Amino acid sequence: MARITAVDTYDVRFPTSRELDGSDAMNPDPDYSAAYLVLRTDDGPDGHGFTFTIGRGNDICRVAIDALASFVVGLDPDTVDLGDFARSLTHDSQLRWLGPEKGVVHLAAGAVINAMWDLVAKRAGKPVWRYLAELTPERIVDLVDWRYLTDALTPAEALRMLRAAEPGRADRTAELVARGYPAYTTTPGWLGYDDEKLVRLAEQAVADGFTQIKLKVGADRADDVRRLRLARAAVGPDVRIAVDANQRWDVPDAVAWMTELAPYDPWWIEEPTCPDDVLGHAAIRAALATAAPSGGRIRVATGEHVQNRVVFKQLLQAGAVDVVQIDAARVGGVNENVAILLLAARYGIPVCPHAGGVGLCELVQHLSMFDFVAVSGSIRDRSIEYVDHLHEHFRTPVVLRDAHYRAPEAPGFSAEMHPDTLTRYSYPDGPAWA
Amino acid sequence: MARITAVDTYDVRFPTSRELDGSDAMNPDPDYSAAYLVLRTDDGPDGHGFTFTIGRGNDICRVAIDALASFVVGLDPDTVDLGDFARSLTHDSQLRWLGPEKGVVHLAAGAVINAMWDLVAKRAGKPVWRYLAELTPERIVDLVDWRYLTDALTPAEALRMLRAAEPGRADRTAELVARGYPAYTTTPGWLGYDDEKLVRLAEQAVADGFTQIKLKVGADRADDVRRLRLARAAVGPDVRIAVDANQRWDVPDAVAWMTELAPYDPWWIEEPTCPDDVLGHAAIRAALATAAPSGGRIRVATGEHVQNRVVFKQLLQAGAVDVVQIDAARVGGVNENVAILLLAARYGIPVCPHAGGVGLCELVQHLSMFDFVAVSGSIRDRSIEYVDHLHEHFRTPVVLRDAHYRAPEAPGFSAEMHPDTLTRYSYPDGPAWA
Repeated sequence: MARITAVDTYDVRFPTSRELDGSDAMNPDPDYSAAYLVLRTDDGPDGHGFTFTIGRGNDICRVAIDALASFVVGLDPDTVDLGDFARSLTHDSQLRWLGPEKGVVHLAAGAVINAMWDLVAKRAGKPVWRYLAELTPERIVDLVDWRYLTDALTPAEALRMLRAAEPGRADRTAELVARGYPAYTTTPGWLGYDDEKLVRLAEQAVADGFTQIKLKVGADRADDVRRLRLARAAVGPDVRIAVDANQRWDVPDAVAWMTELAPYDPWWIEEPTCPDDVLGHAAIRAALATAAPSGGRIRVATGEHVQNRVVFKQLLQAGAVDVVQIDAARVGGVNENVAILLLAARYGIPVCPHAGGVGLCELVQHLSMFDFVAVSGSIRDRSIEYVDHLHEHFRTPVVLRDAHYRAPEAPGFSAEMHPDTLTRYSYPDGPAWA
Repeated sequence: MARITAVDTYDVRFPTSRELDGSDAMNPDPDYSAAYLVLRTDDGPDGHGFTFTIGRGNDICRVAIDALASFVVGLDPDTVDLGDFARSLTHDSQLRWLGPEKGVVHLAAGAVINAMWDLVAKRAGKPVWRYLAELTPERIVDLVDWRYLTDALTPAEALRMLRAAEPGRADRTAELVARGYPAYTTTPGWLGYDDEKLVRLAEQAVADGFTQIKLKVGADRADDVRRLRLARAAVGPDVRIAVDANQRWDVPDAVAWMTELAPYDPWWIEEPTCPDDVLGHAAIRAALATAAPSGGRIRVATGEHVQNRVVFKQLLQAGAVDVVQIDAARVGGVNENVAILLLAARYGIPVCPHAGGVGLCELVQHLSMFDFVAVSGSIRDRSIEYVDHLHEHFRTPVVLRDAHYRAPEAPGFSAEMHPDTLTRYSYPDGPAWA
């Protein structure tokens, strides 16, 4: 028997805007940040979790996490029901009013839920991906908040899908441990980089074994044509180049702009418009159905800012996306991402997670690996974003080998930052901000 | 020349859960609350605004309002451009990450924007509805953030609509001042009331001249059938009875439940499911197209929890709603509600605002009156919700006569609470909470 005794919170910010790492058409000067929490226990390891933000407002998320402490303190991590626990946070009627299930309160709920997963998996001695992938189909179904989903997927249908995948779990686990999970890299493509740096990093990515890179677009059309031409020349015809507009366009702009970039064969257009605009994405996808050089489709991808499972459900129902991009710290934690993985599998759409930021690579690898072993059973057209920022602040950072994420073996969710980082980058009083 | 010198904020909560006023199927025990702010100036009146919440989390909204103070302090309310000002709050890239344009940060932006409208209208000596209705079409168009709207409505189209309505402004203003704007009442329908109280209050509503009442539904199906039967018997066949499920159902549940209530001729079903679910609302509306006793439609209404203009745009594009329910304090203030009124007029859908709560009647009357004078030019099938709670805390509360809101004449947005209220209901230290 153990007990959660306290929730400690931290406002951690990295001054990334000084180097223009992470710069894109909507976010010119992000200071990558984490509203970070530790679930303290009276026996054994602590649970760590965080919300990723880009600076201002990180303190608001921290206050929201503090407001959820009363839902957690006193619980026994060895007996907590992880489905009921997640629902207790998102169903509180008074806090729900502030979303519902979106914005700061939902970000905070996700951070607390993920910290509980870190804690429970550590106590079980397993990495989260393996902990999840070893649950029975019934227990996986029970993790999900099914409210608002049953017109697209029922618990019974999800159970059938999970049972159908069960016999292959062992083989896929072995394959995953042997080979890892494919990654693509965004490192070459930040808007703040000049042409020389773009070409050099694109060539380096190919040399490192990546078969897909990503470029930011959307600030200036002529610049984007030139940058995509240079990148295509650098990587050759067979490496996929995704482009990412970070919500910069209205629907007509997205279609016009992407038609102009089409000769350079972009693999997908990511966040072409507002993440809330299901019908807008569907219209863009329809307009780009034959825009690629071969007359094929330019794919539409979105998800890093999609607020919850209900919007993902609609993107799938409307045929609005070719690629679902989950984010480990945007929605209601592991539980809501399990729901989204099940929905994507139901519609046969590949999931390629958003990562980068602070610690998002660390978290989301677990979700994709669980998906491969126990849900979709496939890595076809699937890969996890990789950005080589800020991993040094984590106790068990991601490991890439041959452009694949190695399957983590350390117990927990890979969420834990070094204590020195929590001190040094504490905002506004840490030495990094002095 | 004046200057905004400070932003004072207050956590104001009313212990309404003690009486079950405001109880519904999703919100059994709300403590109606306001995260309240005052823009202090060095000369003349102050500007007042607030976010409405139902208790826990009101403090998080207050912190978010505090975080926006730096965008306001130092501005001159006599020269501020109200379009640019609103966009400065919603476009800040770092804060935008926490939504975008949804949840706590967007609620806070709406409160600050509305406080600026209160201040500017007070200095002009006009109520907000009249201030708005006397702007040129060009200035009204410039209030709107057009990003993400142009696939449904362009600024040029909006300008044409507003110019077409311009010749009738004077006549409609005179009509509005003479007759007021129609109201409907939710007072009889809270779930926490017993049958006797429901019938008594429904009969009273008819005696008071209301031609529409509203009942909460969604907790227990047999109870709802009985309550709607009693209400229909009490008000007779000609008074409209709207019902409101407060997001309680999945799509299949909504259709089944409303089919069972159909014999009692409900006028609309409000919030049948998740406010994010555009396609769900469209499916429910299609299923209920011939469900009414006459073979007519049971209308679908939503909006009080719709996060921003992009979701309203889609509800209209998808033909998902018969009634648009704006909320004065949910979206990005007056400016975003102007966008939503223009969208609704473009699609010919009536707007019947959500009110009640704390001060929502006070605010939203201005928006409907502006809509009548300068945008849609119509009150057909339009009415503003009325609930008789908590008006006594405002300096210039709404005035109802013959079931119509009287057009307010006091300068400003009717947003100002009595100083004594701010002290007495201050949470957690005010005497009301002692």
